[in-house]
Amino acid sequence: MVNQISNGVKYSKLFGRTIKTVPGNMKIASHKFLYQAGFIRESAAGRYYYLPLGMLVRDKVTKIIEEEMDKSGAQKMLAPVLHPLELWEKTNRTQSVSFELMKVKDRNGSEFALGGTAEEMMVDLAQKFNLSYNDLPFHIYQFSTKFRDELRARGGLLRLREFLMKDGYSFHADEADFKKEYAKMQEVYKNIFKRMGLATLMVEADNGYIGGDYCHEFIVESQAGESRFLYTEDGAYAAHEDVAKFLKEPKNTGEKEKELIQIKAPRGKTMADGVKFHKLPDWQQIKDVMFVDEKGRFILAVIRGDFNVNETKLKNLTKAIELRHATDEEIRELGSEPGFISPVGIDKKVLVVADNSLRGVKNAYGGANKKDFDRLNINIGRDYRPAFEGDIALAESGFLSESGQKLLSGQGIEAGNIFQLGHYYSKKMKACFTDKDGREKFYYMGCYGIGIDRAIATIVEKYHDDNGIIWPAAVAPFKAHLIALGKDEKIYEQAEDIYEKLLKQGAEVLYDDRVDVMAGEKFADADLIGLPLRIVISEKSLKSGGVEVKRRDEESGEIVAMGELEKLIGE
Amino acid sequence: MVNQISNGVKYSKLFGRTIKTVPGNMKIASHKFLYQAGFIRESAAGRYYYLPLGMLVRDKVTKIIEEEMDKSGAQKMLAPVLHPLELWEKTNRTQSVSFELMKVKDRNGSEFALGGTAEEMMVDLAQKFNLSYNDLPFHIYQFSTKFRDELRARGGLLRLREFLMKDGYSFHADEADFKKEYAKMQEVYKNIFKRMGLATLMVEADNGYIGGDYCHEFIVESQAGESRFLYTEDGAYAAHEDVAKFLKEPKNTGEKEKELIQIKAPRGKTMADGVKFHKLPDWQQIKDVMFVDEKGRFILAVIRGDFNVNETKLKNLTKAIELRHATDEEIRELGSEPGFISPVGIDKKVLVVADNSLRGVKNAYGGANKKDFDRLNINIGRDYRPAFEGDIALAESGFLSESGQKLLSGQGIEAGNIFQLGHYYSKKMKACFTDKDGREKFYYMGCYGIGIDRAIATIVEKYHDDNGIIWPAAVAPFKAHLIALGKDEKIYEQAEDIYEKLLKQGAEVLYDDRVDVMAGEKFADADLIGLPLRIVISEKSLKSGGVEVKRRDEESGEIVAMGELEKLIGE
Repeated sequence: MVNQISNGVKYSKLFGRTIKTVPGNMKIASHKFLYQAGFIRESAAGRYYYLPLGMLVRDKVTKIIEEEMDKSGAQKMLAPVLHPLELWEKTNRTQSVSFELMKVKDRNGSEFALGGTAEEMMVDLAQKFNLSYNDLPFHIYQFSTKFRDELRARGGLLRLREFLMKDGYSFHADEADFKKEYAKMQEVYKNIFKRMGLATLMVEADNGYIGGDYCHEFIVESQAGESRFLYTEDGAYAAHEDVAKFLKEPKNTGEKEKELIQIKAPRGKTMADGVKFHKLPDWQQIKDVMFVDEKGRFILAVIRGDFNVNETKLKNLTKAIELRHATDEEIRELGSEPGFISPVGIDKKVLVVADNSLRGVKNAYGGANKKDFDRLNINIGRDYRPAFEGDIALAESGFLSESGQKLLSGQGIEAGNIFQLGHYYSKKMKACFTDKDGREKFYYMGCYGIGIDRAIATIVEKYHDDNGIIWPAAVAPFKAHLIALGKDEKIYEQAEDIYEKLLKQGAEVLYDDRVDVMAGEKFADADLIGLPLRIVISEKSLKSGGVEVKRRDEESGEIVAMGELEKLIGE
Repeated sequence: MVNQISNGVKYSKLFGRTIKTVPGNMKIASHKFLYQAGFIRESAAGRYYYLPLGMLVRDKVTKIIEEEMDKSGAQKMLAPVLHPLELWEKTNRTQSVSFELMKVKDRNGSEFALGGTAEEMMVDLAQKFNLSYNDLPFHIYQFSTKFRDELRARGGLLRLREFLMKDGYSFHADEADFKKEYAKMQEVYKNIFKRMGLATLMVEADNGYIGGDYCHEFIVESQAGESRFLYTEDGAYAAHEDVAKFLKEPKNTGEKEKELIQIKAPRGKTMADGVKFHKLPDWQQIKDVMFVDEKGRFILAVIRGDFNVNETKLKNLTKAIELRHATDEEIRELGSEPGFISPVGIDKKVLVVADNSLRGVKNAYGGANKKDFDRLNINIGRDYRPAFEGDIALAESGFLSESGQKLLSGQGIEAGNIFQLGHYYSKKMKACFTDKDGREKFYYMGCYGIGIDRAIATIVEKYHDDNGIIWPAAVAPFKAHLIALGKDEKIYEQAEDIYEKLLKQGAEVLYDDRVDVMAGEKFADADLIGLPLRIVISEKSLKSGGVEVKRRDEESGEIVAMGELEKLIGE
């Protein structure tokens, strides 16, 4: 019998085996186990080989997504990996994504972007057809390799520089029609993740450089995740911390504005030092954080002392792409002093950005741009006029939602996202359809993404114990791990027999046929690889006329008659 | 019922329709029809979008290859698209493939090649395991996007700059073991192509920049192909013209060498002019062709006057990567004269390369590196000593094979190839396994490729008529094209009914549900798209209680009872 991996494989023939130890730098469970159990190997940071076991999982995850997308009416297609750069120039994304965009030139001098997302390509494709209202709506999607030049890749498959993504794009005549698809996709996504064994929470999110007005993330709760979000207990509100809104109750707005004064304040540099020195509440202090953006602009974020700045909100308000903290030296060159910065009288080239919470505070106190000097009675509008004023505050656990409920915080992995794009791309690319009235109108778009590699890592994060992975049946590389124990030839004959029978039955089986390996090692490998069922053929089982079957997620197994086995496998 | 394209789709919902006219520059049938019938669209030259119909074909072709590869025991995996450039530097292929290799740098300064073939990657991966003789042999393969910076892309899917390739790599302890896999793959490949409807001819071929000693191409005969090959009628010999050997019978070797003389020869510049002027046979004349390679070396190819130079053979002999003809100016700068070049007394910096056929000619004649002067009685070895001597002659139809049979010539599309790599990569990358005797040995490799896009184009080249594509059932996007004719609602109700019944039965159906389109247009679209069966529901069929079924490859259809339809579809 040929060793056909899509159905079953003998361990002795498998390319990519388990190994006993993992490098110490592998901290995340999914990284460690996928490596140790022989699913992946690193090529370069953020770029991985899929070994045959990993490939089987990848194909199953892909298939689930494909089936659900097809069922929804979306149509699979494919765009080239290399995107003509002029398309990205039309939407100006060569600027906004420049730090993550890899570019390449061909021998004829044409420039291309290595696709990170494909909005421009899909609009370009749609433009090749004379679309009319009759052709709308449609939803096209693809599985394709994506590239993002991440500054730091994370261990394993959680954050890659090269990855497989399902990205879908829907085209509509108007927002009302789009909203139907957006709602449908929420169900489709929930269902896709559910089939993989993943419970997701849908939260409002930041749309990054994708464009559009609103979007949602599908988050799988996990300590390994980088998405922090806030939600109310009743589930009425859930939002990524980068967009989460909360109630900023005014503090002392009834107070009269007093005269601005400067006093000597020989104190430490922290907020706490200020509170201690002035014996005033923390919320009355102004917190000043100086940033520098990618263009070299100095941005001073000012906020109520009991709040923190959220950099994403700050970026969105100021249209900055990248932010870093200013150095002490830079602050001094601006004529200020670390720990004593103030928006009042700061160098005119500094862009002052105030959180709207400061409108709820009268007679605030804070630094005076001079070492050991503070000011009292600072009032926004009177003493300084920020260039931008808005919400730049980080929502935190315990704050109140805008409707007055307590916010709870959670952490998880961003497993998918859906975006309203609106007319963002169609306007920039002048992409229209002919409406019923014969007029050319911009179409209304949405886009929908799921990272396949990250989904795999997320499954492992959720399904493992100390000994290895515990694959949900729907995405397990094989259904059963068949183990022959001992040295007796008869056992291997019987195991071979069962293996072939199961394969004929259509079951997916990994058969550990190694003769020179001890039981303990075989069991450890089975736990590590994590197939749903472990079937053991041994002298004991031979005598009993059955086989020992243990579920990966249960402590102990049981002897099962041959006839029962087929049923179990078929489940 | 949801419109689920993997099973069936309504034409009114399909993204990517047929169009009536094609741009005049589309000359090749596959290019024209795949465009016109709505399977593909061009993004940039050599880079294509697959529309949903095209995607369905692509998936079917891929699936056939996957099934046959799996059945053979090969294991599917995946390497990153971006290959660390240092791997290619180890094998020196950054030089030999430089003209086709696209490179990209990430923000951290790491350099990558956009993978064209993946030998280095697979060896790199194998090196991550401590391979022993016990682990050999194994064969791993992938489907992955490949990039080649072709100077000229051809129309449609025949020669792309970005394409999907199945590339497999086998690892063996020695040549004997490799040869078993090489023989097996010949059968696997034949079978893969047969399942797609393609008859292939296996010919010896040039291994290009892949390395190794021998390889074979699988050619599908077609006027659209660029592979020219020679074969004997009994099939005992078949080889690409770049490697084809033939009998070079000695001519006048019995003759005595006469004294070299120079004479005035006011003649034209061609070989024919020489023959006419000297009244001597063409084979006795020396044909001189001056080339310049990528390093700027001048290479003078000399050959018997009745033969032509094959540039690939010349490249292989001289290790040149690219060749172009020298200009008249360059020839004069070398102190010679176009039409009168001679290896005798040519500038020392010119590399003279002689075809071994010249050993069979005594007292040859040809130019004297001076306008209107020729030499007589030129003898190789005596009058000039070539730097290289070997086979640089183009085999042509009518020549004799080395075993004395007449060679016939053919033309076709290179649909796949298999390569012996031997120790080429393992030695360069110092990649070893531990043998039974405990010693480290280089493993012996083979590699095996099939281009998916080209396979699709090839199928269309072989299966079309003036009206469109005639898909073989195994790769057709859908099995049947259901057409409702007329304006009567009842017809559309019945058609809808049949459509849903067929889908439930698992049949793949494209349903042309358009009400406002005439019969002629619907039939023309069906012919263009080319599904195996056309099913028509009309007033006529309604009355007869059946449907009209016509095969795409037959002239006329027949009325079939409903019950029969299911059987036909199930075939």
